[in-house]
Amino acid sequence: MELQFLGTSSGIPSKTRNVAGLALRLDGGGWVLVDCGEGTQHRILHTTLSLHALQAICITHLHGDHCYGLPGLLASAGMGNRVEPLPLVGPAGLRDYVEGVMATTALRLPFPLQFVDVTQLAAAAPLPALDIAAVALSHRVPSWAYRFTERAVERRLDAARLAAAGVPPGPDWGTLQQGGSVTLADGGVLQGADYLLPARRPRAIVIAGDNDDPGLLLDAVHEADVLVHEATYTQAVLDKVGAGPQHSSARMVAQFAARAGLRQLVLTHFSPRYLDAARPGMPAIADIEAEARAHYDGTLFLAADLARYRLDRQGTLTGIDQA
Amino acid sequence: MELQFLGTSSGIPSKTRNVAGLALRLDGGGWVLVDCGEGTQHRILHTTLSLHALQAICITHLHGDHCYGLPGLLASAGMGNRVEPLPLVGPAGLRDYVEGVMATTALRLPFPLQFVDVTQLAAAAPLPALDIAAVALSHRVPSWAYRFTERAVERRLDAARLAAAGVPPGPDWGTLQQGGSVTLADGGVLQGADYLLPARRPRAIVIAGDNDDPGLLLDAVHEADVLVHEATYTQAVLDKVGAGPQHSSARMVAQFAARAGLRQLVLTHFSPRYLDAARPGMPAIADIEAEARAHYDGTLFLAADLARYRLDRQGTLTGIDQA
Repeated sequence: MELQFLGTSSGIPSKTRNVAGLALRLDGGGWVLVDCGEGTQHRILHTTLSLHALQAICITHLHGDHCYGLPGLLASAGMGNRVEPLPLVGPAGLRDYVEGVMATTALRLPFPLQFVDVTQLAAAAPLPALDIAAVALSHRVPSWAYRFTERAVERRLDAARLAAAGVPPGPDWGTLQQGGSVTLADGGVLQGADYLLPARRPRAIVIAGDNDDPGLLLDAVHEADVLVHEATYTQAVLDKVGAGPQHSSARMVAQFAARAGLRQLVLTHFSPRYLDAARPGMPAIADIEAEARAHYDGTLFLAADLARYRLDRQGTLTGIDQA
Repeated sequence: MELQFLGTSSGIPSKTRNVAGLALRLDGGGWVLVDCGEGTQHRILHTTLSLHALQAICITHLHGDHCYGLPGLLASAGMGNRVEPLPLVGPAGLRDYVEGVMATTALRLPFPLQFVDVTQLAAAAPLPALDIAAVALSHRVPSWAYRFTERAVERRLDAARLAAAGVPPGPDWGTLQQGGSVTLADGGVLQGADYLLPARRPRAIVIAGDNDDPGLLLDAVHEADVLVHEATYTQAVLDKVGAGPQHSSARMVAQFAARAGLRQLVLTHFSPRYLDAARPGMPAIADIEAEARAHYDGTLFLAADLARYRLDRQGTLTGIDQA
């Protein structure tokens, strides 16, 4: 599984960072889009992602910087002749927003939209290989985090025990791995279930929308491998801006991650006041990073547009060098 | 006056061309935006245009590639603390589209929107220095061209005649230029109106939306300096695509421009199938240009994103080198 960031700015785009969009790339080529700020389809042009392989779109909340790219992306998928149904998961109001735009701008799509209210996710199960659960957050409008968990985890055979039992590698191994039984030359019968190694833990990723109370995610990050969370400001700027916008500081998220025992944290959704390249007297992304590191000693990444991270089967997140 | 293209692709963005958006930059720093496809605000970040100096937005028609950037651009103007009212000119339905998005995405703006129905333009006169007139075009949805005409044309004094009349350059010249009268030392009285050179012709630019019948613009381009028109396809491709999409070929527009005696033509809104750099066997922007030149020998430009053209007071259009 991989994460690829399509936008990492809060509120308005900058020259280097677009507004929110995040691709969750699955083993096998499919992917899920979490949030779709204006210009998300433009960022996708600079990736290998295909709108034909998009399995679902999950919207965390209905602020423009998280959803104004949706109509254009849907229109482009249609012009690309997508025919597969597309689940759209989001808060109440998502359907009104999308259908309102479609009706007022004569947008007709050659594929069906399947609206899934975020509170009905368990019944809908819109993804073939992942369970999705939603967690309510605290923001100016209803905002949600999505927890994506692998549904089926591949099982591996215990090769050493099979060798000891006298079964050489071959078609019988496939039968046993599928859970079938095999009769040996001496008439003995082996059951596949007896020769499978313990299943690894399914990987889980939590991707949060805008939120001023990270503690709401305590249960959701339990046994999750990664949390992706906004860190719009440093604490000093948050104190100056005030609580009104209902965002988190890097310190708030980092302290929560430390308390929750989270192994891996990715911060995103930075106020455009923070520059990528440090300039004397100007706030910089490095300030957010330094603040987070002061309170959290797990694996920490600060996302950039188009940055890609691989979560391997052991649950370890590493950046993918795209140079 | 200047034209600066913010998007020149039809339907979907490409890596080099965004969907429709065109800035009409006025003498004095103000500007008008004609169409606002998704990502228009992103293109603006790469110009010197300011959302504070934006005097009006004119939408030619309500297809997504011409209006899906509007909500995000308005939101960004709001976050930038614009307070000046903003006229939004467009077809019936523009208000429903914008207000629907605002209502479903909790968008509140710190400045008023002044919706102007395109059929009521004459009464509304939304721009301080330009008259706008609209011309109905032929497309799958109601589509319009806008004709922008300078309202007040500066008058210059006839310096030679004033010298002959014994009035030296000085404050009296200002009085006369304003249309006032001046009493000379000998008691003679001069009227300003008698000493003004004939006014130059006001500059006029016609910017058309999607349209499969350029001849509808015959009256509008009379005494206009420039026409900006779509040329989505070459004729061969249009013949293959068929008339359904209701777009123009380069040949159709060029033949019209020649017939109308138009001095200067800018083509835009190219199907993304046409590549910027020619590759063997692939359609290229150069094909559109060659087709247009074969039928029109006036001044011709094929727009590119961020390309800038100056229309001087004599009505001559020239590209501005931005290197």
